[in-house]
Amino acid sequence: MIPTITAFERSPDGGAGLSRDTRVRWALEEVGQPYEVRLVSFEAMKRPPHRMLHPFGQIPTYEEGDLVLFESGSIVFHIAERHPGLLLPKKADARARAITWMFAAIGTVEPPILELQTARFAEGQESWAEQRLPLIRGRIQVRLGELADRLGDADWLDGDFSAGDLMMVHVLQRLKPSGLLQGYANLSAYVARAEARPAFQRAYAAQRAVSLAAAAAA
Amino acid sequence: MIPTITAFERSPDGGAGLSRDTRVRWALEEVGQPYEVRLVSFEAMKRPPHRMLHPFGQIPTYEEGDLVLFESGSIVFHIAERHPGLLLPKKADARARAITWMFAAIGTVEPPILELQTARFAEGQESWAEQRLPLIRGRIQVRLGELADRLGDADWLDGDFSAGDLMMVHVLQRLKPSGLLQGYANLSAYVARAEARPAFQRAYAAQRAVSLAAAAAA
Repeated sequence: MIPTITAFERSPDGGAGLSRDTRVRWALEEVGQPYEVRLVSFEAMKRPPHRMLHPFGQIPTYEEGDLVLFESGSIVFHIAERHPGLLLPKKADARARAITWMFAAIGTVEPPILELQTARFAEGQESWAEQRLPLIRGRIQVRLGELADRLGDADWLDGDFSAGDLMMVHVLQRLKPSGLLQGYANLSAYVARAEARPAFQRAYAAQRAVSLAAAAAA
Repeated sequence: MIPTITAFERSPDGGAGLSRDTRVRWALEEVGQPYEVRLVSFEAMKRPPHRMLHPFGQIPTYEEGDLVLFESGSIVFHIAERHPGLLLPKKADARARAITWMFAAIGTVEPPILELQTARFAEGQESWAEQRLPLIRGRIQVRLGELADRLGDADWLDGDFSAGDLMMVHVLQRLKPSGLLQGYANLSAYVARAEARPAFQRAYAAQRAVSLAAAAAA
């Protein structure tokens, strides 16, 4: 059964691959699972039919027969679990560690990065918004330093490339506009290494094609 | 094999149960798994021996033979997976939906709640800190409203109590000092229902005993 995911009709990043459907597309490409995409407008995302799929009115969602999932982490995990040995190791301990990195990406590394986005967009017009940025950048740099120390000169966070790396890399990609990643050579190389994967290239091209088509139609 | 978790030697909340070891203790109690606790000071938490266990220098961690995990979500998931049918349903679709709620708690509901803590503590001395609070409260209320709509008059988020409810309830408990939860009768009842579970009561008492002992020794 071919699953259907949802994505922005017009991604706020204009096709830079930073919205969360890219994580799901990437996971689907890594395991070789064909999928369909339903595009959703900002208005439709907040209306009841979409809220039936996603109570918080966001993308991505994942539909496969009667199963409906939301949250990129959960969807990537579901895809990984269906294809043992590709995005999650088959051995129990290594699998548990890869899952730990998925949660670390979302629970520890992403929150200060989201704060930077909130500061720029939701609070960008406040008189103190600019003064707050160095505090947020400082908190992000603490996390990046810790992650860089753990990664060291390894290719991936724990053994082979896993769903943990996929989630972490996509979280780090969101820092590109800030320039903060450039201070960490091994993290920059880690992101570049992930981006060179053919599955990422296909996912990136697929999400970019949506933005290019939307721009052409505008 | 009895696992060992780490917890704060002196929890910043003075034993209110808001630190993340409570989630892990609660999950261990739900499945009836005995455990040991190693207390860690703020100083030790940031030093190399603890960073070997937790690259971001936090608690909780989980050690079981050669396996070392961090991130409360990952540890709760590991515990749940080891005891099928207790914190995660045995049926595949229901299990995937329960995991979705775990990720929703950490990825969607908790981030604005963490912002409130950051605003109060890390940024509390800034001249604009007070002005920012209504914006954060507004973002939290959006999420609470959406969660309340989805929960409706159900006891739990999807069928029986699951690891998804455990994570969500603990995230919501962090809002108690703010009073924000009181605006949502069904969410308040949901939290109270979870807190009445004997496993939660045991976990709460265990973490509270640490704070009481620390206070007595001070």
